[in-house]
Amino acid sequence: MRDMLGRESAVSVPEARERMTRHVIAGEPPSVLTTLDKAYQRILSEDVFSPEDLPGFSRSTVDGFAVTSSDTFGATEGLPAYLNVSHEILMGEEPSFRLLKGTASKIATGGMLPQGADAVVMLEHAQYADGGLIEVLKPVAPRENVISAGEDMKKGEVLLRKGHQLRSQDIAALAGVGIEEVKVYEKPKVSIILTGDEIVPLGRAVRPGQVRDMNSFTLAGLIRKNGGIPVKKGICKDVYEEIRNVVRESLDDSDMVLITGGSSVGTKDMTAEIIEGLGSPGVLFHGVTLKPGKPTIGAVVDGTPVFGLPGHPAAVAVCFEVFILPVLRMLTGREEKEYQGQKRIRVRLARNISSSVGREEHVRIALEERDNELWAVPVLGKSGLIRTLVKADGTIVIPAPVRGLEEGEMVDVVLF
Amino acid sequence: MRDMLGRESAVSVPEARERMTRHVIAGEPPSVLTTLDKAYQRILSEDVFSPEDLPGFSRSTVDGFAVTSSDTFGATEGLPAYLNVSHEILMGEEPSFRLLKGTASKIATGGMLPQGADAVVMLEHAQYADGGLIEVLKPVAPRENVISAGEDMKKGEVLLRKGHQLRSQDIAALAGVGIEEVKVYEKPKVSIILTGDEIVPLGRAVRPGQVRDMNSFTLAGLIRKNGGIPVKKGICKDVYEEIRNVVRESLDDSDMVLITGGSSVGTKDMTAEIIEGLGSPGVLFHGVTLKPGKPTIGAVVDGTPVFGLPGHPAAVAVCFEVFILPVLRMLTGREEKEYQGQKRIRVRLARNISSSVGREEHVRIALEERDNELWAVPVLGKSGLIRTLVKADGTIVIPAPVRGLEEGEMVDVVLF
Repeated sequence: MRDMLGRESAVSVPEARERMTRHVIAGEPPSVLTTLDKAYQRILSEDVFSPEDLPGFSRSTVDGFAVTSSDTFGATEGLPAYLNVSHEILMGEEPSFRLLKGTASKIATGGMLPQGADAVVMLEHAQYADGGLIEVLKPVAPRENVISAGEDMKKGEVLLRKGHQLRSQDIAALAGVGIEEVKVYEKPKVSIILTGDEIVPLGRAVRPGQVRDMNSFTLAGLIRKNGGIPVKKGICKDVYEEIRNVVRESLDDSDMVLITGGSSVGTKDMTAEIIEGLGSPGVLFHGVTLKPGKPTIGAVVDGTPVFGLPGHPAAVAVCFEVFILPVLRMLTGREEKEYQGQKRIRVRLARNISSSVGREEHVRIALEERDNELWAVPVLGKSGLIRTLVKADGTIVIPAPVRGLEEGEMVDVVLF
Repeated sequence: MRDMLGRESAVSVPEARERMTRHVIAGEPPSVLTTLDKAYQRILSEDVFSPEDLPGFSRSTVDGFAVTSSDTFGATEGLPAYLNVSHEILMGEEPSFRLLKGTASKIATGGMLPQGADAVVMLEHAQYADGGLIEVLKPVAPRENVISAGEDMKKGEVLLRKGHQLRSQDIAALAGVGIEEVKVYEKPKVSIILTGDEIVPLGRAVRPGQVRDMNSFTLAGLIRKNGGIPVKKGICKDVYEEIRNVVRESLDDSDMVLITGGSSVGTKDMTAEIIEGLGSPGVLFHGVTLKPGKPTIGAVVDGTPVFGLPGHPAAVAVCFEVFILPVLRMLTGREEKEYQGQKRIRVRLARNISSSVGREEHVRIALEERDNELWAVPVLGKSGLIRTLVKADGTIVIPAPVRGLEEGEMVDVVLF
């Protein structure tokens, strides 16, 4: 839609998002070597192959007796197989002997099978008899109660794929095959520029008419939580040249640029104008059918995403969720599956919520337990109030075509 | 249940858990002051009160004209109210004048209302007329388009509660009222003691019969993820005195002690015996109807929780989830609501799983997309294989009384 002057009016959320992802150039991020103790949640920048077999030898998975399985075939409690216990295998040692037919070796969980042995009889299925013999009461199949050499990982096998985000068990597996360092993607840097003559940094006294910066804290936390590095660029006065210089510098030294505030009429247009002058394609949308967050600016400058965010605290949080997060994820290099996104729960709505058709609404809600069931209670209040975010446990999204939601309806809550 | 020698056999998971929580003495953790940039995800150790009103003055939430609302009552497009624009309010400045009846002041979003003004007419609902006048086309109610002084936070109001885990928006709110440091609980220290003659630390060559430590990496990652500080105490040989000394030292300098491995028959009993000798009540269970994880030892020594964990990688992960995590949460001081636990999704099961009645089974599953739907595919393999954890995306729990699950059934997956 365009207004009478030919300017485009607000675009839909999906359209705005699509324009961003189409123009952002998310090249492969640079790699960096990291040790395992710093690798948690980092994203692999190359496939990792196992340099060796894991385990390197056949191991017992139980406490018992290493045997030749064929020696136990047909054994029962009534007619046990008798085996001569020739050796005891020490943990961490390579058995220096070969197991002969008709003999067994005492072995503990994790012990190395001697040559000639191909299975382990559990302690519970054997009993000692006279003359250094054991009675085996139950047969074992070949490889029963054994982890064979290379059964966990084979040398040369792909252990983990490029783009995978490392979890605790992945790091354990890397350690298990002796890998001490991995190549991961560098985290994307996201510049946060605050604008507004009324904004005062933390630690400075506020005079009447001034307010303290809150948005840089919300944004920095969310950026860090989602795998980026926030770079605070301070607070700009509402002066064209000043803002322009900081935006230009930020385009040079970061992977995404966020400009928040600029709440005065003049500044709103100023932000868009500054972005337009710095590269192409420039502003992709200016105004979106989203509540809160309508005046958001989305832009790409020579491949780098730039957002102009409204100053209201709740609008900043919603814009992060809706626009910034999908772009940030592109920049991290993570191969993400759909279910890996936000934590959601499905609960019952505690009261009617009306919504305008044609506008996607994000409603902050608090979870309340009533009769052993969780209910989503809308947190009322202007989007300029940080308390609406502090009192809330998550948000529900009312899509643009929906007129509203009814009390008692089941809703999906995206948890903070 | 007790065996013929009067020893207790495996206890159920709920019973084992209940014994632990009954005997762990989770006193209030010590507090530490932290600056806001380090406060993310930390847990408040005291209620935080707002030291001032937020905002400190009445602000406009829109671009428009500050007015006396009664001057606009009855205004329509056909019969507008005419007001004389006396001043323009500068951002970040305290207006030096008092708004007179019949006049309006230009104001931007976030601007401070002058004395005498009680509402703001949106730019869209006014138009300029001759002689420095504006026509107001729509009435505004008192406080319309205004955030009043103290509307977001009142001085002395409880901003955040003791036990709350700080999120991005909470830190923003603290910054908003000028709080630069908060008191948070110190993170609980969790000692990790590895035992086993066959275990070799990362960075050392492995000889036949030896394997590298993996469990300390799994545990350290999970401890850190859940708000604790892992303290690796190295690898002990299977020698009573050696293990005993490290456990005793760990009881002194940490809030929880985990002893993993000790896979040889002798050591299993040794761990329990060592714990018994160090304080009361000592071992609370030794063996639990859980798969994997049956040989787990749970103990409390003079208030401090101690676990003896089986050496199998998958069993370690399950024991963490089932036993260690609930205790760790008690130690963090976090007031937790049920929904804040693990991330879960509900999907369809891709094949039958059989399970023994009387045993809680934790089955590792991978998520696979088929026809636009996610399915849970069990990851087969012995619990001694780390690959079963690496290939998996989460676990499903089959409670003790259930015989098994059927293909196509909806199941809850706890995601890693």
